[in-house]
Amino acid sequence: SSFGYAPIETPHLELTELLIKETEDDEVGKQLFRFEDNGGRDVCMRFDLTVPFARYVVQHKNDLGVPFKRYAIGNVFRGEQPQLGRYREFTQCDFDIVGVKTGSADAEIVQVIAASLKALGIERFVIRVNNRKVMNGLALSLGVEEKDTPEMLRILDKVEKIGPEKVSEQLQGTLGFTPEVAKELLDFVSLRADSPAALLSRVSNFKDKGELLAEGIAELESLVAVLSNLSLTRDVFAIDFSIARGLGYYTGIIYETNLLDMPEIGSVCSGGRYDNLTQNYSKDELPGVGASVGLDRLIAALVELKLVETRPSPSEVLCVLMDPSVEMSVHVAAGELRAAGFNVEVYPAVAKLKKQFQYADRKSIRYVLVQGEDELKAGTYTIKDMSTGTQQTLTSIEELIATLRD
Amino acid sequence: SSFGYAPIETPHLELTELLIKETEDDEVGKQLFRFEDNGGRDVCMRFDLTVPFARYVVQHKNDLGVPFKRYAIGNVFRGEQPQLGRYREFTQCDFDIVGVKTGSADAEIVQVIAASLKALGIERFVIRVNNRKVMNGLALSLGVEEKDTPEMLRILDKVEKIGPEKVSEQLQGTLGFTPEVAKELLDFVSLRADSPAALLSRVSNFKDKGELLAEGIAELESLVAVLSNLSLTRDVFAIDFSIARGLGYYTGIIYETNLLDMPEIGSVCSGGRYDNLTQNYSKDELPGVGASVGLDRLIAALVELKLVETRPSPSEVLCVLMDPSVEMSVHVAAGELRAAGFNVEVYPAVAKLKKQFQYADRKSIRYVLVQGEDELKAGTYTIKDMSTGTQQTLTSIEELIATLRD
Repeated sequence: SSFGYAPIETPHLELTELLIKETEDDEVGKQLFRFEDNGGRDVCMRFDLTVPFARYVVQHKNDLGVPFKRYAIGNVFRGEQPQLGRYREFTQCDFDIVGVKTGSADAEIVQVIAASLKALGIERFVIRVNNRKVMNGLALSLGVEEKDTPEMLRILDKVEKIGPEKVSEQLQGTLGFTPEVAKELLDFVSLRADSPAALLSRVSNFKDKGELLAEGIAELESLVAVLSNLSLTRDVFAIDFSIARGLGYYTGIIYETNLLDMPEIGSVCSGGRYDNLTQNYSKDELPGVGASVGLDRLIAALVELKLVETRPSPSEVLCVLMDPSVEMSVHVAAGELRAAGFNVEVYPAVAKLKKQFQYADRKSIRYVLVQGEDELKAGTYTIKDMSTGTQQTLTSIEELIATLRD
Repeated sequence: SSFGYAPIETPHLELTELLIKETEDDEVGKQLFRFEDNGGRDVCMRFDLTVPFARYVVQHKNDLGVPFKRYAIGNVFRGEQPQLGRYREFTQCDFDIVGVKTGSADAEIVQVIAASLKALGIERFVIRVNNRKVMNGLALSLGVEEKDTPEMLRILDKVEKIGPEKVSEQLQGTLGFTPEVAKELLDFVSLRADSPAALLSRVSNFKDKGELLAEGIAELESLVAVLSNLSLTRDVFAIDFSIARGLGYYTGIIYETNLLDMPEIGSVCSGGRYDNLTQNYSKDELPGVGASVGLDRLIAALVELKLVETRPSPSEVLCVLMDPSVEMSVHVAAGELRAAGFNVEVYPAVAKLKKQFQYADRKSIRYVLVQGEDELKAGTYTIKDMSTGTQQTLTSIEELIATLRD
C-alpha cells in the first residue's frame, strides 16, 4: 500500500485454457488440480497469482487502465510431492506493475522487495538480480542454439548447488557444448566484484558481442544507477549472473532474494519481467514486472531466526469461571478489560480452578483473573501473573487496568 | 483476537468423506466442487469453514486440547447459480468455541458478533436469537413427527418473507398439519415483547409442555441474564422464535444478525450450537458453538451505508516522471515521503505530464509531486493538491512533508 499498489483478489478457480497452453508448460500442466465443474467447464485451481492477474487485467482493461500496480495475497495449488517447506497448497504475496516496459518499474520492484522484508524486521538479506537478455545474448554470442538456451540456464542455475565442474560436465554431456563454451559461460556466471557497479564495469566489454547482450547490460546499468542511490536498497542488492529462475515466461530482469542467515532455504522472494503472459488468448501484449514472496517459507525462516514470536493464544488475560453465580460479572469484567485494549478470554465453562490454570499455562496466557464469590462480595479482583507466580488483589477495575498496564 | 481466539487456517481442499455423508446432505452434495486429484483421492473444495475446522480439531486433539477457541477468514465454494450478493466463491469469517456445551460459550458468541460489527463502525443492528430445542420441543408437544420438524422449520422461517397466511397454507398443504397446529406454531413464532426478558416471561408457561421445550427456554433465560447486563450487547440482541437457519447440524442456540438500515440483504452473521459435526468419522463427540460473517454481503452493505470508503488506489501522492534524468531523484523523494508515513506512487514510465495528471485524477490520488529538471536544479518540490487545484513550491523535503501533514 505504501507504494500505491491496489489489492486485487481473483478467484481460486480459473478456466484451464486461460492458465496454460496445452502445447507447452507440461511441467506446470502435470501439477494442476484440474477438473470439470458442475457446469461442464474445464477448470483448474490457480497455480500462481500472476497468470490469473494477467487474465484479469485483459478482461477489465477499460476500467482499470494501464499502467496498473497491484498486490495480492493468496493461496496457490500445485499437485507435486510435498517436501520440507514445500506444500501442495501455499501462500504467495505478489506485487506487479503491468502496462509498461521501463527500468523505473524494474527498479521499483526491488524497492518493494526491500521495503517488505525490512517491514518484517529482516535486515540481513540480498536481492540478487540478473537479466534474461544478458544470458540469452551471451548464449547467442557463443553460438548456442535458441532451443538450447532454457536448458542451458537450468544447468547454470545449479552452479551454487553442484559446483562448476559438474555444471561443465552437464553442459557438455546434455547439450554437447565444447569445453571452451562451457568455460566461457561458467567464467561469466562466476564473475564477482565489490559492488554491482564494479561488476557491471567488468562486463562492459561484452556489449560489443551482440545487441541483446548490450541491451541487457544497459538495463542493469540503469537499475544500478537508481538502486545504488536509495538508502532503502543500496546495501541489499547484488548483480548475480548465475541466477536463472525456472519459469519460462520471464524475458528481462529477474530477481531472487536470499536471507544471509538462512541461505539454505533458497529464495524467499523471486520474480522478473515478462512480456507475453496473455498471448494465447489476447492480441494485446501485456508487459509487466513483479515478484512474489513465498510466505510459508519466509514465515518458517522468521520463526527460526526468532524474528516472529509464535504463541498458542492471543490472550493476555484469562478470566476463570468458578461458579455459575459469578458468570455475569466475569463477562462484565472481561468486557471492561477489552475496552481498555487487552486481549481477554473467559474460560468457557465452570471447571476446577486447577484445570483453568493449566489451560492458561498451556496457552502461555500471562495473567489469570480470579473473580469468585468472595471477590464478588468484596468487589475485588485477584490477578495472578503466571510468569512470576505473584498474585495481587485490587479493589477496582480501574486499579486492575492500571496494574496490567504497568 | 481481543476475545482470545487463535487464528487457524485449514486447506481449501478436503477429502470428501470428511465433509459430507453420502447418505445425507443432498443439497450440499450437489453444490460441491468435487473431483479426483492426481493421487486418485476423492476431494472437494470446502463449502464452509466449520466442518473442516471440526476435522482439524479431531485430528490435532492431543496438541490443541479443548476447550478451544478459533477464528478463520477464508473463501468457501458452492456450485450454485450466482445471484446478486451470492457468488460461487465467497469469503466467510468464522469464530467458534469447541469442546464445551455451556451457556457461557453461547453468550460469548453473541458478544463477539456485537464487538465485530461495532469495530467496523456499525451501530444499528440486531442479533436475533432462537433455540432449536425450543422449536423441536414445541413441535414435539404439538405431536409433530420428528422427521417433519426440519421442513416445518424451513416453512416457519419464511414467515417474514411470505406472511403468516401462506405459511399456514404450506404447513397444512406440505406437511398435513391441522389448522389448529399451524395456528399454535404461527402464534408462537409471532410472539413479540418490549424486551428479551419480557418475551421469555410470556413463554415461561410452555416449560410445562415438555422437557426439551423447558430446557430450551431455560438456556435462553441464562443467555438473556448475561447479555442484558453487558453494555456491549444490551441493546443489540433480541429473542425471535421465527428464525430457523437452514443448515441441518444445529442442535441448540441459533443466531442471525440483521442490519437495521438494510434488512433486505438478510443476515450478515449467522451461526449456532452444534453437537455432532464429527460423528461420521470419529467416535468422539465434538460439541461447539460459533457464527460466521458473510463478508461479501457485509462489505456490500458497508459500501451502501457509506461506512467504508472505496478508492481506486491507496496512493496519497503521485510522483510524476518527466524525464529520464530525474528518475533517480524522484525515487529518492518518494522514498523519503514513504519513510514519513505517506503512501506514495512513482508513475512507472516517462510520459506526457497531462497523461500522468489524468492518471492521478482517475485514481483519486490527492497530491501530485512534480520534480522536473528545473526543480531538480533549484532543489525544490512542486506539489499540486488535485482536490483544490492549488499548487505550491517547497524548498526542502522537510517542508514538503510538513505541508502534506497539514
